[in-house]
Amino acid sequence: MSPSDRLFPADPTQRAIARELYGQVKSLPIISPHGHVDPAILADDLAFPDPARLIVVPDHYVTRMLLSQGIRPAELGVPTIDGSPYATDGRAIWRRLAEHWYLFRGTPSRAWIEGVLTEIFGIEPPLCPETADEIYDALSERLALPEFRPRALFTRFNLEVMATTESPVDDLGHHAKLAADGWGGPGGRVITTYRPDNLVDFEWPGWRERVTRLGEITGLDTLTYPGFLAALRARREAFIAAGATSSDHGHPTAQTLVLSETEASALYARGLAGTATAADAEAFRAGMLVEFARMSCEDGLVMQLHPGSRRNHYRALYARHGRDVGGDIPGATTFVEPLRPLLDAYGDDPRLRMVLFTLDESVFTRELAPLAGVYPTLYLGAPWWFLDSPDGLRRFRDAVTETAGFYNTAGFIDDTRAFCSIPVRHDIARRADAAHLARLVAEERLPAAEAAETIVDLAYNLPKRVFRLDR
Amino acid sequence: MSPSDRLFPADPTQRAIARELYGQVKSLPIISPHGHVDPAILADDLAFPDPARLIVVPDHYVTRMLLSQGIRPAELGVPTIDGSPYATDGRAIWRRLAEHWYLFRGTPSRAWIEGVLTEIFGIEPPLCPETADEIYDALSERLALPEFRPRALFTRFNLEVMATTESPVDDLGHHAKLAADGWGGPGGRVITTYRPDNLVDFEWPGWRERVTRLGEITGLDTLTYPGFLAALRARREAFIAAGATSSDHGHPTAQTLVLSETEASALYARGLAGTATAADAEAFRAGMLVEFARMSCEDGLVMQLHPGSRRNHYRALYARHGRDVGGDIPGATTFVEPLRPLLDAYGDDPRLRMVLFTLDESVFTRELAPLAGVYPTLYLGAPWWFLDSPDGLRRFRDAVTETAGFYNTAGFIDDTRAFCSIPVRHDIARRADAAHLARLVAEERLPAAEAAETIVDLAYNLPKRVFRLDR
Amino acid sequence: MSPSDRLFPADPTQRAIARELYGQVKSLPIISPHGHVDPAILADDLAFPDPARLIVVPDHYVTRMLLSQGIRPAELGVPTIDGSPYATDGRAIWRRLAEHWYLFRGTPSRAWIEGVLTEIFGIEPPLCPETADEIYDALSERLALPEFRPRALFTRFNLEVMATTESPVDDLGHHAKLAADGWGGPGGRVITTYRPDNLVDFEWPGWRERVTRLGEITGLDTLTYPGFLAALRARREAFIAAGATSSDHGHPTAQTLVLSETEASALYARGLAGTATAADAEAFRAGMLVEFARMSCEDGLVMQLHPGSRRNHYRALYARHGRDVGGDIPGATTFVEPLRPLLDAYGDDPRLRMVLFTLDESVFTRELAPLAGVYPTLYLGAPWWFLDSPDGLRRFRDAVTETAGFYNTAGFIDDTRAFCSIPVRHDIARRADAAHLARLVAEERLPAAEAAETIVDLAYNLPKRVFRLDR
Repeated sequence: MSPSDRLFPADPTQRAIARELYGQVKSLPIISPHGHVDPAILADDLAFPDPARLIVVPDHYVTRMLLSQGIRPAELGVPTIDGSPYATDGRAIWRRLAEHWYLFRGTPSRAWIEGVLTEIFGIEPPLCPETADEIYDALSERLALPEFRPRALFTRFNLEVMATTESPVDDLGHHAKLAADGWGGPGGRVITTYRPDNLVDFEWPGWRERVTRLGEITGLDTLTYPGFLAALRARREAFIAAGATSSDHGHPTAQTLVLSETEASALYARGLAGTATAADAEAFRAGMLVEFARMSCEDGLVMQLHPGSRRNHYRALYARHGRDVGGDIPGATTFVEPLRPLLDAYGDDPRLRMVLFTLDESVFTRELAPLAGVYPTLYLGAPWWFLDSPDGLRRFRDAVTETAGFYNTAGFIDDTRAFCSIPVRHDIARRADAAHLARLVAEERLPAAEAAETIVDLAYNLPKRVFRLDR
Repeated sequence: MSPSDRLFPADPTQRAIARELYGQVKSLPIISPHGHVDPAILADDLAFPDPARLIVVPDHYVTRMLLSQGIRPAELGVPTIDGSPYATDGRAIWRRLAEHWYLFRGTPSRAWIEGVLTEIFGIEPPLCPETADEIYDALSERLALPEFRPRALFTRFNLEVMATTESPVDDLGHHAKLAADGWGGPGGRVITTYRPDNLVDFEWPGWRERVTRLGEITGLDTLTYPGFLAALRARREAFIAAGATSSDHGHPTAQTLVLSETEASALYARGLAGTATAADAEAFRAGMLVEFARMSCEDGLVMQLHPGSRRNHYRALYARHGRDVGGDIPGATTFVEPLRPLLDAYGDDPRLRMVLFTLDESVFTRELAPLAGVYPTLYLGAPWWFLDSPDGLRRFRDAVTETAGFYNTAGFIDDTRAFCSIPVRHDIARRADAAHLARLVAEERLPAAEAAETIVDLAYNLPKRVFRLDR
Repeated sequence: MSPSDRLFPADPTQRAIARELYGQVKSLPIISPHGHVDPAILADDLAFPDPARLIVVPDHYVTRMLLSQGIRPAELGVPTIDGSPYATDGRAIWRRLAEHWYLFRGTPSRAWIEGVLTEIFGIEPPLCPETADEIYDALSERLALPEFRPRALFTRFNLEVMATTESPVDDLGHHAKLAADGWGGPGGRVITTYRPDNLVDFEWPGWRERVTRLGEITGLDTLTYPGFLAALRARREAFIAAGATSSDHGHPTAQTLVLSETEASALYARGLAGTATAADAEAFRAGMLVEFARMSCEDGLVMQLHPGSRRNHYRALYARHGRDVGGDIPGATTFVEPLRPLLDAYGDDPRLRMVLFTLDESVFTRELAPLAGVYPTLYLGAPWWFLDSPDGLRRFRDAVTETAGFYNTAGFIDDTRAFCSIPVRHDIARRADAAHLARLVAEERLPAAEAAETIVDLAYNLPKRVFRLDR
């Protein structure tokens, strides 16, 4: 990546150390154990669409910021679900971005997109209304070239492994194609992640239909709770065969609950009957986390837990555009008591491994670092979503290191749908770690040689080991 | 203001950039869209009282700190409401401040008061018991001069506009005088702000009397809920005629609630009958926030929300001296769920504008930046009260910028009763923003030219635009 | 201590100021008003045991971090309570530490232990598998020498006073021995602290037996509530006679409650009968805090409050090794409402003094600084436990100073069982304060001369005065 001193402390002593440390890792292969790239991109290996559809339309970081200043998602080409019209002219959408580019000053979106333009596509001039067309044309040209096809970029990005995320009701067809091409499967370059959220959440529209579909895929009777569990287990096997080493769980809270089979069956029946209350839905989700922990002890999938998002908070946005367009807002989240049932059952079991993420920074020193700093089963995930930013990364290391050290953290996770931004995001994380370690060295808290060893572990060895990508 | 490098980072690279950026804004006019200066000061334009009554007695930041070390407010001249005696000798009060001046090391009170002494009154020596009398005399001398009268200072401060804050039962007589003198009214230099808290809070002693008074002022029957709403609307019109562009709402929580007219009327009736419970009072306040949002959509007043203060926490202090003498303490505050009813109703309405403040820093990254970063109606208010300080300002930008950017923040607000401290406070905010931007520039995260444009927006354009002072 | 620039900011301007400020305090006597050193160590003045039993086995910071990476406490020599075997070979335990020493990079444990090795024992080489035996031997040699006996070290450490912590059912025999030797008693070098937690917590196993024991020690009938109170009072007198100037209260929450004697007696009876609910236990603890405040008004013991730890969270660890081996986790804690009953009763009483600690950093700016910044009875305790670290100390000053100033903080507290680490920990705190003050000076927020005066107050005068060690 860039030879610049970006994100390094301005103080010359620290900057020199940071530069040196960054030099240790800037060329290391990228481990991407969690993200949301569509596997079709790599399975089909087609040219990317136009710049607006590549960079603006699918990026809810971008569309939410523009909406916050009155530029409606429909003006940016975000498809509607209520039949109302939306922009389709890529160039017009791109111009709208350029016109409001100043809104992104100081944000990671700016760093990511500028990094993509410069580092990936070699486009230098600043983005502004005057350069919008020129950049659009240059980008369009590049995107048509074979060396900007997804697989070529994957290789150029020095990506060693990238995990996508699928629901158990996904047929994993793209991953089958990737495996057939020598790109997928266990130990492959592109693997999947088991994310069963839409099967354990009664409140997610279409839940019952997905349960039925799960039964069809597995040939099991998912209308009974034991059959449902068996079907989820069967899909875990299929996901493991498609290379998965982890599962992912995005829940409103971190609540866990040990349910008897009788209790769980009763909840499940109410879910199917459409009579479950909000408390039933929460109890069932909480109980399923413990079930998944039990399954993880058996089959070795690493559990990722992403709690605390209030989904679809912006009601009018959800009504017009549906899920995942930027209307989710974090809420206060706590882990210590909610995780206790699961930890009482499996927290001491060496077969279990859980990686905990949060959108609520106040838990870093208070809860997550102390938990990860004692339970052998627990690791700290990288700063997530709104916290995945240069200052967010800095505050994360600042908050957790003194209690949890470096070796209870799981390494950087890009968590992105934007394939082209992957190397840019990992580069920012490596720079942030270099800056953090440089401070420790400059303040005589860590010898330089140990800092150099540590940054390599953070960038490469830890994510590989924690996510069991070395098996 | 001062040519010094105060508050700039010590690192020479950042300091040079900060100095340059500060140079862009140090002489810009001051926009003060929210504060608590008594409008009588400018309406009457009389000389200020003695130094103790100017600087010590009315400043609860000062009297609370001294109380925390055992110097009682009565010893500092704070009037009592229980008939107990209190100091009246200005010089003796001033000496008490000087004697304990070391308690203010590291606090914004020290910076504000020293700034006032030096920048406004040209008094240089440090404040200590040895210099107390000399400074008292010098201050007294200056205060007698015509160039230290309020209107002269207003002009010298380069204040473009200053909003005071009044209750709907205030007759706005001072603002009428100001308008008659060419200082007030819509677009004037001194305007008002509509603050109806003491009319929507059953628990505030004297509520029923104020409701009656509201009826008298408006000639409407405020003993019915529709009449009460109509009277509040009538007063909004009067406030707008006196220049108001915003309303302000200081509530214990950020709870909002959509009430049917039947529900609201029933609550109101219980309030009038003196039978309302604490839950009733909270529900009524929550419902009124939604009513005010509805009114804002109609008349364009910008809503400011200041939630989270536990008023009159220090019981003995309240018993002896009443409200607003430093005994309020913040409590944990959350916004995401409490604001949902209001946002469901009006969050997508382009006519609404709300500026959110907090005393609970943990919500900056978790709730406020994500909310302001997507809802076109929401803006982030400046760090408030205990957070209005050099490090508080730094943490604010550090926490919110990456998610909300700069352009969803509303600019600095001095929130002060201390008229003479206004330019000092704005100067500190400008320096803090210069320091923040200098770091971004030094870390290659923002080009210097864009930082220069941004700081002008933060200091001048944004507050003017967000508070609709440009209409 | 070390002449190095450890923990000072890298920026040369700040570093030079920090060095200068640190020079003012590095040789000042140590005031240690709160800690957990076993008084037997100084009463008996025997040689310390082997290096593993000195440094690894009793340090739950160390054993918890190793457990987090799968090294079981039993492998580290931590005694079991379930009869399972545990390591006893000191050298083998020490080698295990050396082998995993990299886990402590960036943690205060590393700084403390390296400081002990270097500053106290003069052992320089880095700890690693290759040097483990050599260091073990060197340490063993030193420990056998008379100049490394506890009293000799106490003198060499320049410890002016050190408080240990005992339960009211402790017979204070070690303190009697110390007093007889001229080391203890009121105004002595080694004093005690009154910690009644295990007598006011129905939920602590063995509570009833301890109540009985309290009756035996005092000759009072502790099976009645008034007798219980009288017995606690009697023990306070005994503790004061053994030099105590403070009590300490570690509760799950900061809840306080004014109970009538009837209510308290009823709760107490249910506690004795074994029929108390969890809510009863919480109410009784809350009521007892108010009782202790009342007693403090009478006898002058400073109250320390340490709320917010979820004890024995790690169930399997607790089952195997019992209490205090690293399985406690902090939880969200609030003070503003929970403390209100106590503060309504005694918050304005000049005889009361309370020092508040927290494991939840989010309350520093929101609650603790505002509370300590107005109530004359309240002081802020130093960052505690997981927050007692270089960055934790920095964040503490950064968060509280602007609202509470320096003079409402109580000075550093080492809170340690590791006697040899006391000077190292105080040195880190002095360096952290030097760094904080250096920033204020460099940013022109505090004149250097005042910073120099302040750091002496923080390191020496404040803890002595706040904990009433100057009486």
